[in-house]
Amino acid sequence: MIGANLLWLALILISARLFAPLAQRLGFPAVLGELLLGVVLGNLTLLGVGAFESIARDPAVAFIAELGVIVLLLQIGLETRLADLIKVGPRAFAVGTVGIVVPFLLGAYLVGPWLLPGLSAHAYLFLGATLSATSVGITGRVFRDLGKLDTPAARIVLGAAVIDDVLGLVILAVVSSLVQAGSVSVGQVGGIIAQAVIFLAGSIWIGRLIAPHSSRWLAQWDAGPSMLFAQVLATGLFLAWLAHAIGLAPIIGAFAAGLLFEPVFLRDFDHPAIVREIEPLLPTGEPGLAQRLRPILLKHGRHQHEHMIEPIGYFFVPVFFVLTGMQVDLKTLADPAVLGVGAGVTVAAIVGKLTAGLAAGSNKWLVGWGMVPRGEVGLIFAMVGKQLGVMNEAMFSVIVMMVILTTLITPPVLTLLLKRQ
Amino acid sequence: MIGANLLWLALILISARLFAPLAQRLGFPAVLGELLLGVVLGNLTLLGVGAFESIARDPAVAFIAELGVIVLLLQIGLETRLADLIKVGPRAFAVGTVGIVVPFLLGAYLVGPWLLPGLSAHAYLFLGATLSATSVGITGRVFRDLGKLDTPAARIVLGAAVIDDVLGLVILAVVSSLVQAGSVSVGQVGGIIAQAVIFLAGSIWIGRLIAPHSSRWLAQWDAGPSMLFAQVLATGLFLAWLAHAIGLAPIIGAFAAGLLFEPVFLRDFDHPAIVREIEPLLPTGEPGLAQRLRPILLKHGRHQHEHMIEPIGYFFVPVFFVLTGMQVDLKTLADPAVLGVGAGVTVAAIVGKLTAGLAAGSNKWLVGWGMVPRGEVGLIFAMVGKQLGVMNEAMFSVIVMMVILTTLITPPVLTLLLKRQ
Repeated sequence: MIGANLLWLALILISARLFAPLAQRLGFPAVLGELLLGVVLGNLTLLGVGAFESIARDPAVAFIAELGVIVLLLQIGLETRLADLIKVGPRAFAVGTVGIVVPFLLGAYLVGPWLLPGLSAHAYLFLGATLSATSVGITGRVFRDLGKLDTPAARIVLGAAVIDDVLGLVILAVVSSLVQAGSVSVGQVGGIIAQAVIFLAGSIWIGRLIAPHSSRWLAQWDAGPSMLFAQVLATGLFLAWLAHAIGLAPIIGAFAAGLLFEPVFLRDFDHPAIVREIEPLLPTGEPGLAQRLRPILLKHGRHQHEHMIEPIGYFFVPVFFVLTGMQVDLKTLADPAVLGVGAGVTVAAIVGKLTAGLAAGSNKWLVGWGMVPRGEVGLIFAMVGKQLGVMNEAMFSVIVMMVILTTLITPPVLTLLLKRQ
Repeated sequence: MIGANLLWLALILISARLFAPLAQRLGFPAVLGELLLGVVLGNLTLLGVGAFESIARDPAVAFIAELGVIVLLLQIGLETRLADLIKVGPRAFAVGTVGIVVPFLLGAYLVGPWLLPGLSAHAYLFLGATLSATSVGITGRVFRDLGKLDTPAARIVLGAAVIDDVLGLVILAVVSSLVQAGSVSVGQVGGIIAQAVIFLAGSIWIGRLIAPHSSRWLAQWDAGPSMLFAQVLATGLFLAWLAHAIGLAPIIGAFAAGLLFEPVFLRDFDHPAIVREIEPLLPTGEPGLAQRLRPILLKHGRHQHEHMIEPIGYFFVPVFFVLTGMQVDLKTLADPAVLGVGAGVTVAAIVGKLTAGLAAGSNKWLVGWGMVPRGEVGLIFAMVGKQLGVMNEAMFSVIVMMVILTTLITPPVLTLLLKRQ
């Protein structure tokens, strides 16, 4: 029910807007400000302030956060052209696969046994699985904050991150089965992969078949912007639900929903009010002012649905990143042994993903660093391991540190690389 | 956590857009479509379909619904000029007071003892309290759907509905105290009224002192639309929380937040991207096209914050009205005795509020009917009475029927009255 969570949402909403320009002036993407705000709020208990702890566990706030990352991936999907993504498909597949395999092997068979000796083989497998994760949310947000979604490197990273999300899920399922049942069949692994591929390809393919017709039908019913907005957002929510229902991450469904809409599918809807008011005033065929105004009106008309989803993003998206930051427990970093091992695991986490960048052909460093942040996905993997009892507190702390460092280091590095280009 | 609630939100989002034009073509405001959709979904259990019942109890969905009515009242506040509201203040006060007193007396001392004989005096007091409620959400939404917020009648109804919300709360508190403690002191009653008046006047007065300065400061930090949007929405959430914290309805706080912002306070923010792109192209001082375009650009620039909150409304507001509709239990109408008594109580409910309309001076019928819908407020009152054990099932059913009828009859009647003008 409502109460302090309203105050909390107001606080995040306004803080995110205050931090974004600050981060940008310092050369960082805005997401870093939100993550750090979360780290500060989540660790105020260390200073005796416990007011924020309970809010992070409020189911309504957690739901808004999950809606936030769904809306973000819908936005990223809308701003990405499917054709561009398919063009980089083979490269993205190579990057994604290397980016899963190398960190997994590094974690499970090298860094784990070496830096954390004496644990079970299952624990090392879980460390490997956690190192293989990629946070498509943070990756996408960084490129979006820097206005670089429309570059080949961004497309490769996005495609590879989606593939990583699917493969990471497979690894998590396999490792979990190994720990719980002691074995896993090839059929199970194949089943998970097949389901994910069928969902992704199927939803985009069927969606693109339906979307032009549903748009025409809906626009006949009501051509206003509210219907346009509802169609796009409802599709995002629906595919997020469908992905969740078959065991995939909801954000994969939201991204697919964003990819399936092309502006041309939505041409039956009215343009925004301002465009509709200006258009009839423009004399036809006349050069000069009218001719210069038309392309501006057209551009804003075609991207109306993206503009309408923006405010939903301003409201929801920061809640997700602040809550992600709040999951970071700084107490875990107080132990010098954890610090040393954590630094080593972090280096392995970075090296593993930079190796993946080599498979990108061009923009090797940019793509490699784009894959580095583990974000909330890494934390989810670690929490599953902890719940299964396979991961002890020390290993969990090490992984949390790796997640913090990869998530916080990447944005400034990417900014530097993009500015050098 | 996420799951079926995503599917549910997608369904409400798209259904609301399908129902709105249908309702409008039939001459009803869109809110009626959402209420009826809720009634249908909430009563599918009668046909053996129980899938929707659990969703209505999902805390995340309930929270989105509460955010919905908060956003709606913020929007209504933004679209209402405080000066206009103050101008109709004395009339609104008269209408609000009569609209509380007459239905209360009718319910507690005439219709109650007459149509539902043999119950306790406390039960009749509760019936009176429920009859005195006004749903500012439904009232405001009806005028907004019909594009009539900017009329004297709408302002009187809005002002009177806010006063009713405060006085209704006082009556509820008094009656509850009477039932629980057996007595209530004049000091308590005065305290509740003072608190509400201080909150309303204080938040708007202080808000209007701060808003121009905070806007200038925030716009210096970041003049983009996201900051503008965040300031307005965060203020709405903050005052909704503050109202809730002192025991008022959160929507009163949201309405106050909407009232305190004037476009002129927000002039330091950038205009929307399309306006900023067109403006430099217009030649200065030239008559003709440029001169005709300027007022359009100015209008859209000044109302940017309202446009940005629209999508939040499309997403959240229908969830509130569908959930309100779902609280209606059609089974209660199966008993002929309930039907007869319910019809009598409904007539009293309507007559009571139409009497209030007489205090409006002009537009008597319009103002009176504008006060008729009891909506969720009436249901909340009835539920409090049921929880206190003062109201039996039959009386509860009668009240639910009165709420349904006043809520569903009003929109078409208002439409008729507005078209006759």
